[in-house]
Amino acid sequence: MSGPVVGVVGAGQLGRMLLQAAIGPGFAVRFLAERGDDAAAQVTAHHEIGSAMSDKDLARFAAGCSVVTFEHEVVDFDGLEDLERGGAVLRPSPHALRLVSDKLAMRRALGWAGLPVPPWAAARSVEELVAAVTDWPEAVLKLSRGGYDGRGVFMVSGVEEAQAVGGRLLDRRVPLLVEPRLDFEMEAAVIAARRPGGDTIVYDPVRTIQLDGQCREVRVPSGLPPELADRARRLVVTAAERLDVVGLLAVELFLVDGELLVNELAARPHNTGHHSIDACVTSQFENHLRAVLDVELGSPRLRCAAATTVNVIGNREGDDPRRHLAAGLAADVEARVHLYGKQPRPDRKIGHVTICDDDAERASRRAWAVVEALRGDVPGRFADPAAPGGTARTGGPA
Amino acid sequence: MSGPVVGVVGAGQLGRMLLQAAIGPGFAVRFLAERGDDAAAQVTAHHEIGSAMSDKDLARFAAGCSVVTFEHEVVDFDGLEDLERGGAVLRPSPHALRLVSDKLAMRRALGWAGLPVPPWAAARSVEELVAAVTDWPEAVLKLSRGGYDGRGVFMVSGVEEAQAVGGRLLDRRVPLLVEPRLDFEMEAAVIAARRPGGDTIVYDPVRTIQLDGQCREVRVPSGLPPELADRARRLVVTAAERLDVVGLLAVELFLVDGELLVNELAARPHNTGHHSIDACVTSQFENHLRAVLDVELGSPRLRCAAATTVNVIGNREGDDPRRHLAAGLAADVEARVHLYGKQPRPDRKIGHVTICDDDAERASRRAWAVVEALRGDVPGRFADPAAPGGTARTGGPA
Repeated sequence: MSGPVVGVVGAGQLGRMLLQAAIGPGFAVRFLAERGDDAAAQVTAHHEIGSAMSDKDLARFAAGCSVVTFEHEVVDFDGLEDLERGGAVLRPSPHALRLVSDKLAMRRALGWAGLPVPPWAAARSVEELVAAVTDWPEAVLKLSRGGYDGRGVFMVSGVEEAQAVGGRLLDRRVPLLVEPRLDFEMEAAVIAARRPGGDTIVYDPVRTIQLDGQCREVRVPSGLPPELADRARRLVVTAAERLDVVGLLAVELFLVDGELLVNELAARPHNTGHHSIDACVTSQFENHLRAVLDVELGSPRLRCAAATTVNVIGNREGDDPRRHLAAGLAADVEARVHLYGKQPRPDRKIGHVTICDDDAERASRRAWAVVEALRGDVPGRFADPAAPGGTARTGGPA
Repeated sequence: MSGPVVGVVGAGQLGRMLLQAAIGPGFAVRFLAERGDDAAAQVTAHHEIGSAMSDKDLARFAAGCSVVTFEHEVVDFDGLEDLERGGAVLRPSPHALRLVSDKLAMRRALGWAGLPVPPWAAARSVEELVAAVTDWPEAVLKLSRGGYDGRGVFMVSGVEEAQAVGGRLLDRRVPLLVEPRLDFEMEAAVIAARRPGGDTIVYDPVRTIQLDGQCREVRVPSGLPPELADRARRLVVTAAERLDVVGLLAVELFLVDGELLVNELAARPHNTGHHSIDACVTSQFENHLRAVLDVELGSPRLRCAAATTVNVIGNREGDDPRRHLAAGLAADVEARVHLYGKQPRPDRKIGHVTICDDDAERASRRAWAVVEALRGDVPGRFADPAAPGGTARTGGPA
């Protein structure tokens, strides 16, 4: 390796896509992996095994890196703060990571920053919980720490159910974030990349579509009216500046009564930005590396009229999409298929498919057809729009 | 790893870009590397050290692979033929590899296939050489085997110089391919990918620009009139079929008096297709893997009006472009910079830069400016066409 080494804490699919992005420009990356068969560790020798919850493992890992970044937030914050005091370069900072890993701290910080958030209350006890839900007969209880990807989120109706569900949750000694169930028009997200000096680029906002609390589909353009799309862009820049995030910052948004409310933040590559690999000039992964390396950020420009990314989720039967890869590739010759090398388990994200198209609805239909083929269903085969007659498909512009 | 394993003989930059292409769909690849610091071996643990000229190393390597392919042709053909007889799956076949590795065998095969080639003669002795150049006062002598990338090619004027240069070359006991120096209007290239069953896709032909016999710049569209571009597409399909090539086939072409002549073939990813990583729906590298794995080929459609790739070549001073990477990235926020992790040596290809643009001339100017920045010169900084005023560049379509 030559030049500065980026250490990535975690070696899941986000790490794997960071590695993929690093190969082109030749950025040197190393991973702290839990296991040798983690998604990123499968493809690179530049990893070491250790726990992100161990200050010793983090210290040993950081010693070999010029800058350390993170693909998840389940880390030993105290250990990281010690490392930072000792001179290690951590991007984002442990302070910013701590904020985004705690839904209550995040809400408070967003409020201080003047950003619009949904109504919320903190509940550390059943008494606080009952007080909170009295005005909200339909409420959402969220574990403030440790939840992810729709896990740790519970819908409750009425005080009685809130007490029953919330009581069990509070036994874990993690405070709850309590919200009224919002009647939102849509969910959206927007991602920025920010360098240490403050230079920032912003990707086009996307529309996200959830199933069972889990993001299943991402569409760009978002369909937000231009003034709201601009508002989303300003929101993510403000949040990145106020929280002093270096690297990527993803903001999840609710559109409620024509207003955008900030639901959550993530200070790392985000599932709502995977389309950027195939649909944008510079992917979120490359820009995360460029930001933490403090080099010029790449253009986030969308290269097509519309793009849709659909996640590939493990199904109940545990069927492996790798067995159906040929069918998935055959389903649409323009499909960009990404499989993360993970064992399929129910509700586990194990891949994604992106389609670029002139038409947003068609992009979505095509992406879903490929995902169905990867799950072993037989989709309608999508013809190459650029194909002339005859045996050879040629590459002329469509 | 899961699923079939593609073994790649060789681990240079072509192998590195094959690896990069394999990560998305999750194709399992292994490399036979000469050294542990070969360009591809730097980024993956899935390699073993060995020589492509050793039948033992090839046999050991092939035993762990479902299909074996090649990123160069400096291989032990006899050993490969033994392996094939023993049941190993080699794509392309040793027969096709042998043909494309020998300029004389290639010329003969192209003639038999009815494809147009420049006038040529074989010279195994000084007598044959003198006979050949008598009608061609300006001639080109090419080593029939072992030359690459402009090496092994010599321009001579008159019989005397031909005798002097050719005599030294013939001492190496490698026959020469002798041609008249052609007054061509331009050089072009075209790449096809072909599956075992015969399914074929063809990339748009490109224009290639040589400096000192080495390809420095690739432009697409090629500027060939439509009927000649179609002719180029048909030529590569015919060549792939007649030579029964599986995987990629690249055809280098001369345009002479309005006619396309086939100069050379390569049955692997080719320097004239590197733009496909960033400018096409499916890169040549991904399609090579899909072809040798016998799965549906991806669309080769060009995603922009024009693209230029400029090679980064080691300069006389041995300055390392990795030292200037930040300047290269800053030179143009849309530049796709690829550095291969190779030590710079004079005339060695160590990277490339691709720019997509609406305008072909501008794409070329921009790509050269980035290459100059990577070489330590200071180019005019290219502004992001999508940038609005203010501090944050946003991602709206330009």
